[in-house]
Amino acid sequence: MKALVYHGPGKKAWEEKPHPVIAAQTDAIIKISKTTICGSDLHIMKGDLPEVADGRIIGHEGVGIVESVGSAVSKFKKGDHVIISCITSCSKCEYCKKGMYSHCKDGGWILGYLIDGTQAEYVRIPHADNSLYIIPEGSDEEALVMLSDILPTGFECGVLNGQVKPGDTLAIVGAGPVGIAALLTAQFFTPSTIIVIDQDDNRLEVAKTFGATHTINSVDEDAEIEVMKITDGIGVDVAIEAVGLPATFELCEAVIGVGGHIANIGVHGKSVTLHMEKLWSKNITITTRLVDTVSTPMLFKTVQADKLKPKQLITHHFRLDEIMEAYDTFGNAAKEKALKVILTNA
Amino acid sequence: MKALVYHGPGKKAWEEKPHPVIAAQTDAIIKISKTTICGSDLHIMKGDLPEVADGRIIGHEGVGIVESVGSAVSKFKKGDHVIISCITSCSKCEYCKKGMYSHCKDGGWILGYLIDGTQAEYVRIPHADNSLYIIPEGSDEEALVMLSDILPTGFECGVLNGQVKPGDTLAIVGAGPVGIAALLTAQFFTPSTIIVIDQDDNRLEVAKTFGATHTINSVDEDAEIEVMKITDGIGVDVAIEAVGLPATFELCEAVIGVGGHIANIGVHGKSVTLHMEKLWSKNITITTRLVDTVSTPMLFKTVQADKLKPKQLITHHFRLDEIMEAYDTFGNAAKEKALKVILTNA
Repeated sequence: MKALVYHGPGKKAWEEKPHPVIAAQTDAIIKISKTTICGSDLHIMKGDLPEVADGRIIGHEGVGIVESVGSAVSKFKKGDHVIISCITSCSKCEYCKKGMYSHCKDGGWILGYLIDGTQAEYVRIPHADNSLYIIPEGSDEEALVMLSDILPTGFECGVLNGQVKPGDTLAIVGAGPVGIAALLTAQFFTPSTIIVIDQDDNRLEVAKTFGATHTINSVDEDAEIEVMKITDGIGVDVAIEAVGLPATFELCEAVIGVGGHIANIGVHGKSVTLHMEKLWSKNITITTRLVDTVSTPMLFKTVQADKLKPKQLITHHFRLDEIMEAYDTFGNAAKEKALKVILTNA
Repeated sequence: MKALVYHGPGKKAWEEKPHPVIAAQTDAIIKISKTTICGSDLHIMKGDLPEVADGRIIGHEGVGIVESVGSAVSKFKKGDHVIISCITSCSKCEYCKKGMYSHCKDGGWILGYLIDGTQAEYVRIPHADNSLYIIPEGSDEEALVMLSDILPTGFECGVLNGQVKPGDTLAIVGAGPVGIAALLTAQFFTPSTIIVIDQDDNRLEVAKTFGATHTINSVDEDAEIEVMKITDGIGVDVAIEAVGLPATFELCEAVIGVGGHIANIGVHGKSVTLHMEKLWSKNITITTRLVDTVSTPMLFKTVQADKLKPKQLITHHFRLDEIMEAYDTFGNAAKEKALKVILTNA
């Protein structure tokens, strides 16, 4: 089969790889129908995650058709149409028992990272019973690719951890795909004000059409001052960090109001300065999280009920064998006005 | 009347001051029976809180007898025996409506800080109906002085914010009065392991007699390594910071387990380094809080039921007019083996 393979920092190839096989009786082999590229795939390609081995097939999102299952798989059978979760979970370890699937002792985020992933014609999914979701007939599978990772990530790490409530004022720092996923799912809880902050005017325009009440381009304006103007000087109830840089995290610290919640989504490579000299008495909460995908079935229902429209996130389409070109487009997201790209295995 | 008066950094005097008078109809004047000294009083005396005016009477803890009340006070009358809360709250502003009394727009922590306090023969208490608690006949008033501040502070900022649960492993960094208050009240929720970390062997001995299952002297041992040994390398469920220094906060970051809670109590004067490069994916929660005293009535019930024994915290007794000596003792807490001192207005 063909797959997108990582060969060390800056090197990747669309090349021939062996067809995956059942390695444990809890595995399933899936024929990929549609997959996509994530910001963390770009991090891998740059060499930011040195634990990724040369030869690894990348990708942790997608939908497909079950080709075969191990004897211990009971929920899925050959021919089933499924969503692949970015998180693999055994359902048996102490972390899974707490619903913290992201820290599963025999899983977590491993797909397209520590084991071969979904940017391929076929993929092996361990613990298939807990790591796949059935797609009912008549569903729009393209929209459902967004349930593999970015929608549960934006919702769980941003909206749920931020405890967004009706009437809240909310700042989302970063209008990339995950920030937009937080923007879309925050609206389940009817905040009164949603301020989206980014450096890219196109993404801010998109945020406006997706429900942002205010946008701030932090290149042109002092974002802290602008947020304080919008909130009458009291700061926001919830600040969602969807970038992963010290400056964007510290912006969240600067704009958070008394009793507020800072919910981190961003993947950070460096420490940040936490201004405890200002925050110690402000009754604030800061959370971090790797998506657990506990909300995937719930989000699926909101998509089926048309309360959440994930297709809005898709800006570009490619054939799977055009993936090198798709990486170029996604890697120049601002110039290409790209949010999510869909790759179809024809 | 006589009172302990701040006269700028390093200067204080026990001197004559005017008897307080009702300034608003929601005020009460209290004759102090017993008061104490808090670590934050030492900070004020050092000049760490420059907003404290020369001439200010210090102190925000105590019990006493109502001498007079304004016409708008409905819950208290002359002769009532009362606990004075460190937090003054109007009950009407948006923060009070949320139970965040510490941020009351016409109160919060003001006593012995922005208005005259309790280290005096008499004190004026604004918003008396919301800032005093009745002491029933036959109660031990000395024990109840601990309900003015340190017990609700340890309990709300440490134990409640840390979400201590049965079976949890808990680290308390700092075995001063507030750390000990967290230690005592954490046991309401039956954690399995309570590790107390301090630099003072005497305080660690006290912590052991008060329920610590393990103690670590961080001068003699590497506290991070020791906590990891005790927790089989997984870290703690809850880390309570009860010091207020970058090093102690970062120790909490180093020992927190996946899914854990870091609850800050310490008053910080500097920023800290938050290791987001390690913590972003660990599903942790960090909280800060100025005590709201929402738990004071609940804590009172636990004292009355003998489930919480605040008298254990009291190590020294003085007459109120010996307060200069009491400051010397409390200011040398390690040498004097002092936790809380009680000052009695005979």
